[in-house]
Amino acid sequence: MNLKEVKGVTFIDGGVCASKGFRANGIHCGLAHKPLTDTEENSAVANNALPSAKKKNDLALIVADKECTAVAVYTTNKVKGAPILVTKEHIKNGKAKAVIVNSVNANTCNADGVEKAEKMCRLVADELGIDENDVIVASTGVIGQVLPIEPIENGISELAEGLTYDGNARAVEAIMTTDTQVKEVAVQFEAGGKICTIGGMLKGSGMIHPNMATTLTFITTDADISAELLQLALNDIVKITLNRVSVDGDTSTNDMVCILANGTAENKSIASENQDFENFENALYAVMVNLARKMARDGEGATKLIECICHGADTEKTAETVAKSVITSSLFKTAMFGEDANWGRILCAVGYAEADFDINKVCVYIRSEKGSIHVCENGAGVDFSEEKAKEILKEEEIIIDISVGDGAGSAVAWGCDLTYDYVKINGDYRS
Amino acid sequence: MNLKEVKGVTFIDGGVCASKGFRANGIHCGLAHKPLTDTEENSAVANNALPSAKKKNDLALIVADKECTAVAVYTTNKVKGAPILVTKEHIKNGKAKAVIVNSVNANTCNADGVEKAEKMCRLVADELGIDENDVIVASTGVIGQVLPIEPIENGISELAEGLTYDGNARAVEAIMTTDTQVKEVAVQFEAGGKICTIGGMLKGSGMIHPNMATTLTFITTDADISAELLQLALNDIVKITLNRVSVDGDTSTNDMVCILANGTAENKSIASENQDFENFENALYAVMVNLARKMARDGEGATKLIECICHGADTEKTAETVAKSVITSSLFKTAMFGEDANWGRILCAVGYAEADFDINKVCVYIRSEKGSIHVCENGAGVDFSEEKAKEILKEEEIIIDISVGDGAGSAVAWGCDLTYDYVKINGDYRS
Repeated sequence: MNLKEVKGVTFIDGGVCASKGFRANGIHCGLAHKPLTDTEENSAVANNALPSAKKKNDLALIVADKECTAVAVYTTNKVKGAPILVTKEHIKNGKAKAVIVNSVNANTCNADGVEKAEKMCRLVADELGIDENDVIVASTGVIGQVLPIEPIENGISELAEGLTYDGNARAVEAIMTTDTQVKEVAVQFEAGGKICTIGGMLKGSGMIHPNMATTLTFITTDADISAELLQLALNDIVKITLNRVSVDGDTSTNDMVCILANGTAENKSIASENQDFENFENALYAVMVNLARKMARDGEGATKLIECICHGADTEKTAETVAKSVITSSLFKTAMFGEDANWGRILCAVGYAEADFDINKVCVYIRSEKGSIHVCENGAGVDFSEEKAKEILKEEEIIIDISVGDGAGSAVAWGCDLTYDYVKINGDYRS
Repeated sequence: MNLKEVKGVTFIDGGVCASKGFRANGIHCGLAHKPLTDTEENSAVANNALPSAKKKNDLALIVADKECTAVAVYTTNKVKGAPILVTKEHIKNGKAKAVIVNSVNANTCNADGVEKAEKMCRLVADELGIDENDVIVASTGVIGQVLPIEPIENGISELAEGLTYDGNARAVEAIMTTDTQVKEVAVQFEAGGKICTIGGMLKGSGMIHPNMATTLTFITTDADISAELLQLALNDIVKITLNRVSVDGDTSTNDMVCILANGTAENKSIASENQDFENFENALYAVMVNLARKMARDGEGATKLIECICHGADTEKTAETVAKSVITSSLFKTAMFGEDANWGRILCAVGYAEADFDINKVCVYIRSEKGSIHVCENGAGVDFSEEKAKEILKEEEIIIDISVGDGAGSAVAWGCDLTYDYVKINGDYRS
């Protein structure tokens, strides 16, 4: 898929290791509770998701050379995975040095979850000779099954010994669950006359242990920035990127985005909302908007990325509500799968969005790289070529462009189509 | 499927014609824009949905012998079908005598929609010699296509001439779209020493023109009741029946429930919130809760009716929010299709419900006619027999029983599973 271009940044390779001073690794420690079928394995290999095939990595570690400023944003679900509770406690001082993540088991809704999450931090701390309070922990996978700690205990030395400054590919593989595609983005930008880097990896949605819609995102930067502004930037950018994606409307119990800043770029520390901060936010946006788009495109069973742009609203909030209403509509999503320019469903979803605008001013265009069709003007249908519509909708990236009036508020949201494979992935588990 | 029993009422046959003094008819006037395939036809015949097979009825008429008290509740979608605007105007005096309904075309988002809806009323008025303001009009089907009025114009005489006091089956067929099952319920109850009747028919969700999730419900009663109390009863009962059903989360542009009361039962007119009014509400509940359950069971592509009961909440609103959160979760719905006791997904959906309760007090049971399993206690998993779970989940009606504390608030919501057929029905249209 195409990266969304953002002015002022340069895309580079390397994911979480793109930022100077971060090592990473990922290993297969044996948490998998169901071996891949041949079909799954072939499909994963074909999608470049499983370089080491049969034994998918399931345990990742990211370590900074020096102590980092660290902040995070967590799920709003009342059910919170045990790792989230432990991580919150560990980074309340705004500092961290390492991140350990396992896939396969979410370590959520278990009586001993917190104990096991703390144990994971202690294993890292002992192995690296750091403080366990400097370790961030995250888990993703099946909810409500006791986490076996032995595979992690047995694998921790191998995991630490294999850390390298280009280990991002091994790490990102280890956090994947039902994902079919690797999701990494890194950019360079300028702050205070220095070249800084932000790199990130994300997991969300796919095929191997279909029991969650969990999103985990880990971001590193070598920029020097205060904890307060790092948190502000993360809050700002999450709001307009990850929080505007929906695959199936289910908010996970283990969602977490964390960012570690180690200051290795030696820029003048960003401590106020100045131009450098703006550059930083812009670069963070470039990383996160592209991770968000990759996540939507790789939504469970998806064949298409859907981008819904709403503009002309009185407020950004109204535009966001309308755009999200469209990309979460099951009827709209199935129409996209069927490559059907069924704009009545778009208008229906616009109509039930809980926001303030005049439905008689709504205009809708459907676009892709193959062109654009105008399907609705002032709330009523417009004649269009069904042939042209078919051609446009065959593409992998579809844009729904909705104008709701003359206001200055606009917003973009990302989703995917609803397909047979979504039902298969989520209906067949354990059967 | 089993009817939900309600004390104080007796179920009878006859749908909208069960109430004394109401005639009905349904004909095929030729609005269908896509003939049924053989498979669709066979399936519809097998499901008892199409007594006349090939040419499904598409135009229905209900006529009362004398003027009725009439009230309605409409969609909250900002996009409102033209028939809704016309009906609102016609029954603002609380009176009506006839209802005309077409399927296939929703007459929504068309420049001439209101004109066509008014024309439909005028055709009925001229044919029956009544005032056109006494006619209720409704349409359901594809949004945004101009309604051809000729087939209706040509069919109106046949429609009126065929009216009979047992014509409910022909009428209910005419309002079906993607429905695979007929949905009619009628009950008798006592008010003021007289036997009164309430009968209703509903359409919602299925297989023929998959372009809407529209619900239309028409209810008749021979009870004598004031317009004010009729509206109060309808509002009360819609809130706890139809408004607690979700098939796919999409609120239609043409939703309407209307009720006509002709007073033929000669009960002392119900004009205050007395015991008779309570009996009336109870009977209306019996009709509407069973129509709601039938709609959920016949949700597009559904194989199961899911009933989610939440209790122990501080308020009824909290219980409703939790129950609806569970039955609308795509991940939960696919698990039900897969007959998988994946309670983590139930807890996840409980957790993101925007309501106030202590997640650590949540207990969950999964039940059916085959028994009950306890899967979650105080927010954490409980060991259960997977074999027993399989047996329970094989049934067609599944109950999810969720306790969230010690409060007195409880609510029930109805939904269905999410299946390959839902995607097929809604993805394949026009392709």
